[in-house]
Amino acid sequence: MPQVEKKKTLVLLGTGWGSATILKNIDARRFNVVVVSPRNYFLFTPLLPSCTVGTTENRSIMEPIRHIVGKRNVKFYEAECTDVDVANKHLVLERTNPPESALQTNLRTTIPYDYLVVGVGGTYNTFGTPGVEQHACFLKEMGDASKIKRRLKDTIESASFDNISESERDRLLHMVVVGGGPTGVEYAGELHDFLVDDLKKWVPQLANRFKITLIESLPNVLSSFDKKLSDYTKSTFEKNHIDLRTSTMVKEVKEKSVIIQNPDGSTQDLPYGTLVWAAGIRARQFAHTLRSKLPADQTNHRGLLIDNHLRVLGARDIWALGDCTVTENAPLAQVASQQGKWLSKSLNSMTRDASVSDIFAQIDTKTKPFKYSSNGSLAYIGGEKAIAELPFLNGHITAGGPLTSIMWKSYCLWELFSVRSSMSVASDWFRRALFGRTVSVD
Amino acid sequence: MPQVEKKKTLVLLGTGWGSATILKNIDARRFNVVVVSPRNYFLFTPLLPSCTVGTTENRSIMEPIRHIVGKRNVKFYEAECTDVDVANKHLVLERTNPPESALQTNLRTTIPYDYLVVGVGGTYNTFGTPGVEQHACFLKEMGDASKIKRRLKDTIESASFDNISESERDRLLHMVVVGGGPTGVEYAGELHDFLVDDLKKWVPQLANRFKITLIESLPNVLSSFDKKLSDYTKSTFEKNHIDLRTSTMVKEVKEKSVIIQNPDGSTQDLPYGTLVWAAGIRARQFAHTLRSKLPADQTNHRGLLIDNHLRVLGARDIWALGDCTVTENAPLAQVASQQGKWLSKSLNSMTRDASVSDIFAQIDTKTKPFKYSSNGSLAYIGGEKAIAELPFLNGHITAGGPLTSIMWKSYCLWELFSVRSSMSVASDWFRRALFGRTVSVD
Repeated sequence: MPQVEKKKTLVLLGTGWGSATILKNIDARRFNVVVVSPRNYFLFTPLLPSCTVGTTENRSIMEPIRHIVGKRNVKFYEAECTDVDVANKHLVLERTNPPESALQTNLRTTIPYDYLVVGVGGTYNTFGTPGVEQHACFLKEMGDASKIKRRLKDTIESASFDNISESERDRLLHMVVVGGGPTGVEYAGELHDFLVDDLKKWVPQLANRFKITLIESLPNVLSSFDKKLSDYTKSTFEKNHIDLRTSTMVKEVKEKSVIIQNPDGSTQDLPYGTLVWAAGIRARQFAHTLRSKLPADQTNHRGLLIDNHLRVLGARDIWALGDCTVTENAPLAQVASQQGKWLSKSLNSMTRDASVSDIFAQIDTKTKPFKYSSNGSLAYIGGEKAIAELPFLNGHITAGGPLTSIMWKSYCLWELFSVRSSMSVASDWFRRALFGRTVSVD
Repeated sequence: MPQVEKKKTLVLLGTGWGSATILKNIDARRFNVVVVSPRNYFLFTPLLPSCTVGTTENRSIMEPIRHIVGKRNVKFYEAECTDVDVANKHLVLERTNPPESALQTNLRTTIPYDYLVVGVGGTYNTFGTPGVEQHACFLKEMGDASKIKRRLKDTIESASFDNISESERDRLLHMVVVGGGPTGVEYAGELHDFLVDDLKKWVPQLANRFKITLIESLPNVLSSFDKKLSDYTKSTFEKNHIDLRTSTMVKEVKEKSVIIQNPDGSTQDLPYGTLVWAAGIRARQFAHTLRSKLPADQTNHRGLLIDNHLRVLGARDIWALGDCTVTENAPLAQVASQQGKWLSKSLNSMTRDASVSDIFAQIDTKTKPFKYSSNGSLAYIGGEKAIAELPFLNGHITAGGPLTSIMWKSYCLWELFSVRSSMSVASDWFRRALFGRTVSVD
């Protein structure tokens, strides 16, 4: 008879691209899997900007964790992991029910782990800019998108009042986006579409007064893409009357205006109605909590240092992946997703191998190191246009325009976690094509 | 040449069943139409209970006012009407942007009217029961449904913690519904479906511990329906393990329990996780503001008194309809909708008649009085069953069961304000049938 060993407990922290991919692929017969995350769904982040204007519905791009788990026996805690004891191998979980649910039940528990995977991801980075935390909207979680949607609605309804001044109306209808990476560019593109496709029709008296400004500190938007694509984006934005301000720094965000520094060094005070901060991300708190327990090896204040088998330097039985780590790879969904695939495959294969007694120690001799291989980059830029950079032989091909937009849409549908999500997003697009977006907010 | 008279300004207050029906049918070439409402959409209230558990998506049952307006020239204010000057014929509008949109712009304006239609509707009625305002959830507006959805999610996720006591877990999973009218019954039915269809599958360890209790002060639920249907609902609820407590009074709602008085006079303290108050409605504040301006004629503290041409007693050029009025008719969507049809038709026809110089004074000689004619009543009671009471010759026919549920669904799709809504709801149902509901909340 084969020896039956007690299953080891594998705790996954987070439900983003990295952790959710592991959850999808891990063999729950070989591990006692526990998932801990403050949100009980996976979020398809590439479509988050399009939720701000109602091109896609929120729940279409949310895949419930329990759907990913399916019939497997996996324990899920909707909670924040607030502390870790690396010597005794246990975690502290805390759950604070939000005031709006009025449950007033705050919970705390301690759970043990044999193996831990840290995929807690990143949060927005203000880079210490004064006022951002207080006055800006962000675009990282579903709640952020809902807040932007509500704020857009409120600016439009406020600007519809007859007795406000013309300058106040112009302020309200000025939408500022900070950050020229894919998130900022896609959000500006979606805003433009909403304006041209819908607001021109539903609030014609206001439509000509909307203004979109995108501020980027570098000389180009989408600077990680090929220069040709960055230029194509620039000319598309110009055609779409999006005011693109490159080499421009944000010095301070005030309640109703933003102070910027122009390329010539002069400063300017731009009144705005809505400001979305999409300037970058930083590792979440738990990454720093863990770092503080491993001071000798974890010397990078930006996030967790890992080896090429995703093992957290200085730790035992802890892996990390995605945006809470610091590696040579960019903080991309694609990277975290590939890391998740690699790690779940490695863990599954090592538990199948009877000769492996210590997965963590032996993973480097038993598996090939993780290596990121880009499947290409895509970004939607508005007006049914997208740009793409695809790996091809040893170089890459670039594309931009309406056909690329179809490619972008197909990619989204393909990459969505489930048939349910894909169908939902497809039906959202179909409905949008037929009936347009709405200015109503639930 | 025909005499061109300046168009009269017709202000509609509210965007519910009454006002939205007028807006849909009014001839905007004959009136300068202005709409004022704190929400910029019409809400298809019969499906509100099904939004609490995600059977339908929120935005599917919200029809934007601007879609109803279409290409007609209509001015819309998303604002509360806080005061009226009946002598000088003007209204005070106030708009307070919600704190979550952080706009911090509070607006106030005064607008004139020639004719005014008051369709501000009703709000929940606590009947002075202590603690309801502070601790109960309601089911009147979209925000109420979202709050219930969030709270259900939070109770489920909290109850999933291992280290809470068994009694606390039972408390969290006890869902109490107060009020055995159509709203309370439909909500209990939807909750039951969510429990059986979805929670049993996704959180099996908790599913057997959920408990639904419905409390009604009268001896029967759905007492406005035929006794046979009320009994059918009762036996269906019994089969579905919904604890039905009739002839039971709620004395007080506390933070985590509700004090009830049983039919035998004894009191009991029931711990609950979520309590939904669907016990009745009362007229909104503006109805009382208007009443206070017409003290001689407006003597009913429950709402506005109107004549059989929907004219507000004691007022000039003011009509009222729907749940802010006190008439012989029940506070039903159907009544308000028929009143809206009658009033828009009357107004349109009178402006077409060159001999009519004073619409308000002459409406009683030129048009037939409004008379409500019931098209029947339908209510969904859970488990793919509905009940129906339909007028037939001089009596009525009653029906209950799965076929009636199909009738109920068809009725919903038929009555929805637009092709967009109908398609959205149909696709929500289709998606639900294929993939179930989700416990995730956006």
